[in-house]
Amino acid sequence: MLIHYKKIIDNELKLFNQNLPSLSIYEPIKYIINLGGKRFRPSLTLLAADIFCEKPQLAINEAVALELFHNFTLIHDDIMDEAPLRRNQQTVHNKWNINNAILSGDLLYALVNKLLATSPSKNKEIHKLFHQTAIEVCEGQSLDMEFENKNDILLTDYIKMIQLKTSVLIACALKMGALIGGASSKDSNLLYNFGLNLGTAFQIHDDILDVYPSEDNFGKQVGGDIIEKKKTILLVELINNSSSVDKKIIFQILDDQEIDINLKVSKIKDYYKKYSVLKLAVESKNKYYEKAIDCVNQINISENKKVLIKDFSAALMERKF
Amino acid sequence: MLIHYKKIIDNELKLFNQNLPSLSIYEPIKYIINLGGKRFRPSLTLLAADIFCEKPQLAINEAVALELFHNFTLIHDDIMDEAPLRRNQQTVHNKWNINNAILSGDLLYALVNKLLATSPSKNKEIHKLFHQTAIEVCEGQSLDMEFENKNDILLTDYIKMIQLKTSVLIACALKMGALIGGASSKDSNLLYNFGLNLGTAFQIHDDILDVYPSEDNFGKQVGGDIIEKKKTILLVELINNSSSVDKKIIFQILDDQEIDINLKVSKIKDYYKKYSVLKLAVESKNKYYEKAIDCVNQINISENKKVLIKDFSAALMERKF
Repeated sequence: MLIHYKKIIDNELKLFNQNLPSLSIYEPIKYIINLGGKRFRPSLTLLAADIFCEKPQLAINEAVALELFHNFTLIHDDIMDEAPLRRNQQTVHNKWNINNAILSGDLLYALVNKLLATSPSKNKEIHKLFHQTAIEVCEGQSLDMEFENKNDILLTDYIKMIQLKTSVLIACALKMGALIGGASSKDSNLLYNFGLNLGTAFQIHDDILDVYPSEDNFGKQVGGDIIEKKKTILLVELINNSSSVDKKIIFQILDDQEIDINLKVSKIKDYYKKYSVLKLAVESKNKYYEKAIDCVNQINISENKKVLIKDFSAALMERKF
Repeated sequence: MLIHYKKIIDNELKLFNQNLPSLSIYEPIKYIINLGGKRFRPSLTLLAADIFCEKPQLAINEAVALELFHNFTLIHDDIMDEAPLRRNQQTVHNKWNINNAILSGDLLYALVNKLLATSPSKNKEIHKLFHQTAIEVCEGQSLDMEFENKNDILLTDYIKMIQLKTSVLIACALKMGALIGGASSKDSNLLYNFGLNLGTAFQIHDDILDVYPSEDNFGKQVGGDIIEKKKTILLVELINNSSSVDKKIIFQILDDQEIDINLKVSKIKDYYKKYSVLKLAVESKNKYYEKAIDCVNQINISENKKVLIKDFSAALMERKF
């Protein structure tokens, strides 16, 4: 349903790419933009502007800046995660090298800042929000990295981490669009909180899908997060709810480098079952999803527009776009 | 002579540090700020504002943002250059690790952007200039990296590289201060060009000092740039002026991993002498220095203020502060 906005964004990104200089450090930037993506964050910015002023184009610079910022974080995150692939293509540091990935990322972030600074939008609050969000995204990535070597993570710490790493950017995308569309402070904050809660539900859903895939995910390695010992809501709930004897065994399984990976996944899944971890995770997901919908209901817009946002929310949770 | 401004900057940086959260990703940021430095870039911003409106404090946010941006580039450049030390202390990636250095650098840049966006200065041109300069600094670093593996560099390419990597930030520091101080477009551009040319002269001087040190530099390895095969104005001039036979020998010496490093430096210095490379470099330096002074002379300010800028320029070239 955001396909109309996606087309606008893709077109703008194409123009952005075409206008970049031919200097070789711009190549990784052109490359990652051309890798594509759902563009759902910038589409949300256009949607929010559209809802409040029916002129989504007014928010185009901020939407594109947000998508480019997201791509900048992908370049640097992929270095930190040593990821070889992104959207089934080589990551930037893998195709070029780490130095090129660091520097082209920095350059992309500088381009984002210039794009924002030259945007006709006069509202200073928008830029403050954007830069504050950038700070929080970095904080989220740092917590994610810290958690890799930490076993005693509370659910609240985990939620804080995914909110900083993922949800705040979705929330920012929406609030920027709302502010540009002339929404009241109350409505734009409600939309921010909608995004924050929806993003959180979405990330929890993503954690669940890794171990309990839907039919569409056929062919993907089940339990990739378990193999990587990644802190997901499932693992965090398991660690916090299991007996000390089981917890010791769980870490032995996770740390076992010799064990067959499918057996590893299956053993951990047995513990997930024993401690009803899926149920706990689904409850969390639903809690945040309901909070999100509750925010939408409070926004001072027509019922039709609320339905639009709710339909998008449902589609996102079903990963249907 | 900029000591008064340095004190203001150091005080602001101290407050900035104190107000940073306790999250561990902020530690590398606090660390690099505490490493100190001459703070001459932000001091120039305050000087320029002082010259035009006698209220240097008006430019404090922009000055601090510029210094912090410079520190962000140092964190990332040190990774790319694999530098173990910065100001005789461990570099960030050396003290922590590469991931922490990438991420804390990104976070510092995000903090810079927020500081700028929340600055009371209303002039949009200032922020455009700042972000355009950031783009150019990244471009300069990319050219510097490219030149490492390239032997046929023209003098104009070399000058372009050092101007992007070094001079534009000095020029930006001055122009931001001038704009905040209410300078005319003509005067602020003259100050920009002064900074661009002075920065170029300064970098050429730096290249020269590495091989022909002043007395103050006693104890430092002479010819460190030769050992690292770094493209300096001396090497660029040598490559462009030597016979093809000599050029071949010069690259053999530079690529020789077995030779005693002092012998390597001495052999290359012999070629510098043969082709009067020092003279050529000094001529370039003087040309840019004179251009810089010529810009100062055209600015519509009192003679006293011109003398102030010229005294600073002379002190910078003598590295007396």
